[in-house]
Amino acid sequence: MTWQDIAKQKREAILTAIPQEWRISDSPSIEDQPDVTIYIEQYLSKEELEITACSADQIAQKCGSGEWSAEDVTRAFCHRASLAHQLLHCLHEIFFDAAIEDAKKLDAYYAEHKRAVGPLHGVPVSLKDQFHVKGVETSMGYVGWIGTFEGKKGTGKEKVYESEMVTMLRTAGAVLFCKTSVPHTLMSGETVNNIIGYTLNPKNRRLASGGSSGGEGALIGIRGSPLGLGSDIGGSIRIPAAFNGLYGLRPSTGRLPYHGIANSMDGQNSILSVVGPLATNAASLRLLTLALLDQKPWFVDPMVLEMPWRYMEENAINENIHDGRGIEKPGGKLSFGVLETDGIVNPTPPVRRAIEELVAALEEAGHEIIPWTPPPHKPLLDAGFKTWIFDSGTDVKSAFALSGEPMAKQVAFFEKLEKEYKASEIAATNVELRGLRKGYLDYWNSTIKETSTGRPVDAVICPLAPFPAARPGRYGYYGYSTWVNILDYSSVTVPVTVVDKAVDGRDEGYVALDERDGEIQDDYDPEIYDGAHVGVQIVGRRLQEERVVALAAYVETLLPFGG
Amino acid sequence: MTWQDIAKQKREAILTAIPQEWRISDSPSIEDQPDVTIYIEQYLSKEELEITACSADQIAQKCGSGEWSAEDVTRAFCHRASLAHQLLHCLHEIFFDAAIEDAKKLDAYYAEHKRAVGPLHGVPVSLKDQFHVKGVETSMGYVGWIGTFEGKKGTGKEKVYESEMVTMLRTAGAVLFCKTSVPHTLMSGETVNNIIGYTLNPKNRRLASGGSSGGEGALIGIRGSPLGLGSDIGGSIRIPAAFNGLYGLRPSTGRLPYHGIANSMDGQNSILSVVGPLATNAASLRLLTLALLDQKPWFVDPMVLEMPWRYMEENAINENIHDGRGIEKPGGKLSFGVLETDGIVNPTPPVRRAIEELVAALEEAGHEIIPWTPPPHKPLLDAGFKTWIFDSGTDVKSAFALSGEPMAKQVAFFEKLEKEYKASEIAATNVELRGLRKGYLDYWNSTIKETSTGRPVDAVICPLAPFPAARPGRYGYYGYSTWVNILDYSSVTVPVTVVDKAVDGRDEGYVALDERDGEIQDDYDPEIYDGAHVGVQIVGRRLQEERVVALAAYVETLLPFGG
Repeated sequence: MTWQDIAKQKREAILTAIPQEWRISDSPSIEDQPDVTIYIEQYLSKEELEITACSADQIAQKCGSGEWSAEDVTRAFCHRASLAHQLLHCLHEIFFDAAIEDAKKLDAYYAEHKRAVGPLHGVPVSLKDQFHVKGVETSMGYVGWIGTFEGKKGTGKEKVYESEMVTMLRTAGAVLFCKTSVPHTLMSGETVNNIIGYTLNPKNRRLASGGSSGGEGALIGIRGSPLGLGSDIGGSIRIPAAFNGLYGLRPSTGRLPYHGIANSMDGQNSILSVVGPLATNAASLRLLTLALLDQKPWFVDPMVLEMPWRYMEENAINENIHDGRGIEKPGGKLSFGVLETDGIVNPTPPVRRAIEELVAALEEAGHEIIPWTPPPHKPLLDAGFKTWIFDSGTDVKSAFALSGEPMAKQVAFFEKLEKEYKASEIAATNVELRGLRKGYLDYWNSTIKETSTGRPVDAVICPLAPFPAARPGRYGYYGYSTWVNILDYSSVTVPVTVVDKAVDGRDEGYVALDERDGEIQDDYDPEIYDGAHVGVQIVGRRLQEERVVALAAYVETLLPFGG
Repeated sequence: MTWQDIAKQKREAILTAIPQEWRISDSPSIEDQPDVTIYIEQYLSKEELEITACSADQIAQKCGSGEWSAEDVTRAFCHRASLAHQLLHCLHEIFFDAAIEDAKKLDAYYAEHKRAVGPLHGVPVSLKDQFHVKGVETSMGYVGWIGTFEGKKGTGKEKVYESEMVTMLRTAGAVLFCKTSVPHTLMSGETVNNIIGYTLNPKNRRLASGGSSGGEGALIGIRGSPLGLGSDIGGSIRIPAAFNGLYGLRPSTGRLPYHGIANSMDGQNSILSVVGPLATNAASLRLLTLALLDQKPWFVDPMVLEMPWRYMEENAINENIHDGRGIEKPGGKLSFGVLETDGIVNPTPPVRRAIEELVAALEEAGHEIIPWTPPPHKPLLDAGFKTWIFDSGTDVKSAFALSGEPMAKQVAFFEKLEKEYKASEIAATNVELRGLRKGYLDYWNSTIKETSTGRPVDAVICPLAPFPAARPGRYGYYGYSTWVNILDYSSVTVPVTVVDKAVDGRDEGYVALDERDGEIQDDYDPEIYDGAHVGVQIVGRRLQEERVVALAAYVETLLPFGG
């Protein structure tokens, strides 16, 4: 069989896994129906709509108290996810039967014991197609991985091996039901591969759903899943979260268990990919993270730090918001740095407005904003980029070679790479990175002189990308997401607004910083972008997951768009 | 000038820095006086002997309460260190004048405020010659580094730049007074270089002081310093600690701040060198570690984890020893794995006896011992070794090339290396290491089935080297120390006994495992080793510094040799 045949067979198998009664026969064109987030609802029952409108923490509460059955919840999300895939091409693996079996067991457990098996009892959780799940394949978008275990045949692990985190999710009571699309190589902010094609943005199908956890972004964005797991080495959780109006957490390295999850360029350990949640609210990010940390993942993954959820860190934020009884604490306030531009590529008008609105909301609530003027990002980005091409694409090229399939243009830069870095060059890059991280840390500490809180800034607000979402094939700049990975900081995305073409006009008379900046500004077309989500990120220091999640939860209460 | 001239000049400058009145004119030969730990005392006054007999925590208590002056303490250790260097060749840098000035300032502070400046008030602390100290050179044993900053001229950092930890030590009230010898390259368990020659073991000058923190080992071993800082990538803290009857802590990566400290093969980040203390008792290891962690080193070193000293972890050990009021807790006990041999090289008779004595003492105290039968160490050691030769010696060769000096035979293996690892090979090694670490973690967890405590073993007791100390030029096997680095575990060495030729005879009729094992067993000569220290290590999981230090403190109370 040619790679085309194998891809087609897989593509059709995904569709075949969708029950006949859930098929859409009259799928609308993108131009007729760019926004399908409301459109999809016509196919769902009142009960299904009620269920799928809920956030993961609400579902956990309802299933965990016996109010809802896990089976009903699971079936509702399976249905909505099926519709989502037909409109967006966001799924790689569908295992609804197994999910419904699992849900029935949860219901039986509840019926017998009158309590939840764990904090995620009955919560459907979708997984980026890097996670290994028993009975299910992992292609990671590579045609050559179909029918193998990570490209290898006869390992005995095919459809048997399960990633550590998957097992932990089950222990917590989650119901796993599908795996979502990724760009082959994982190294793109758009999700495209030769199996499922291109994953569209549900809020505006003229735009990308983001990547590399783009299937997660699209699926959760259209409420085909309440909660999902992605991974992030350059923005791959936060990009799809921001592009789809979601909350996404990029934890620092070593916080959540990556063990046994498929990856690209596995073993590159200068800047590591991390796993983290995407969800429809901040409370669900917290729920998921706590559910994992409470299982002490450092006992199953040697790279995870022995660092439980630190309530005191969360309180360090919350005590400056209210006193826990809903009463404003006198004098308690937070301080934020705001990075309006990194000076390399400017944010387009709607992103600028989103930053302004978030800043205004925080100021209105009594908090302090100072300009964030860190050491220049360019040296940081240049050093970071090297780590992603250390092996000159050796790993990803070998994955493409398995089937002979071509690279999508979004990742075709790998084709041009020729020479691997050698040990001494890698070491020099690591030393350079360490120096840059030190410089940034020193700068962060120095902001204590600028704030009135007696502390350096509590977090940094900044764009996640120069645009609300990329236009297909036009993701021209990653610097706003990657600087966080390069520094290994914790970061959470929050949805702030949607593009309004009446408000977010082109920047007339704009003088481009350079050619690339000019192209990115030109790509911003209010007609095309109208209605798209605009998210930004709140960045904390390294290993400050509790604080950034607490900040996201707070910001959610401040913004008209939140909650 | 030839490298010989430069080395000689430096060697003489070190001697010149010793005041005339502290010179030894009639230095005894090694054969006449192998053990100089008592011999040295003839040169010291009663007051100096009283001071230098104290551990760092005792000094901190006496200086911190104003009972002793920091100046008296400093002068006493400067004197004893001067004698030590003349007998052992253990110092690279002497800055007694600056130390006495600092001590005077501490005394003035105490006189004015009636309190200590910090937890190390007045405690002399010696530093391995990797730490940069204002006003002082760092040669790291390379002739080519003399008069430079890490081999580079005109950086503006020469004798000005100070490592972050050095500043923190000053903040804590420590008095810095000398830097100690290292093997050039740092990659040896013996300390030899072309500047100071070979550092001898004070308890038995026929033996090595260990390495690479061998100057620390010798100096603290002879009580020329109460407390010092070393570094450890393959045993370099623990080896000199064990060889010199000391306590040494190898923390896991990311616990203590390495920032701004000179290193070999800097930027190799598969297995990282870590900094840690050596001292004459466990309480001083704790004092030093707490003094650093209380300064929140994660705010000055981007690689340090935000992980304060965790009293609860310490208590997890202590609650199984006594209830805090000296009363035995009913039923509370600890469980230890004991690795008698790694099956690659067997420990020689005195090391075997040390393990047996420690095991017997723990059993006598009511604790539980189970055999430690982990996954085989060989694959672990093989994978770990690769990381140390990733750059095929490029870094160390360039350091030798600066002056043209030759490599000592202890590190001459670097000369034979030719080809650097490339990125994909390094990545494959990292993946391999991760798998091996996972296997070991799973094994550790599995010991819960063997213990009666309801927990996996609390720690592992094992040799630190096959011999009590290496004979010069004969350090043939590092596997007992390096497995800990490869797994990034926390480990502490404890002194257990001394070689007694009457007890620790050769193992007659011993059948060697292989040629190397045979050579190592043959090298054990009771006549030569008589009187040498024998230490072993107590190994905890990753980032279990609190627990291993608590265990060391406990073991110290159980052993006749301790305290």
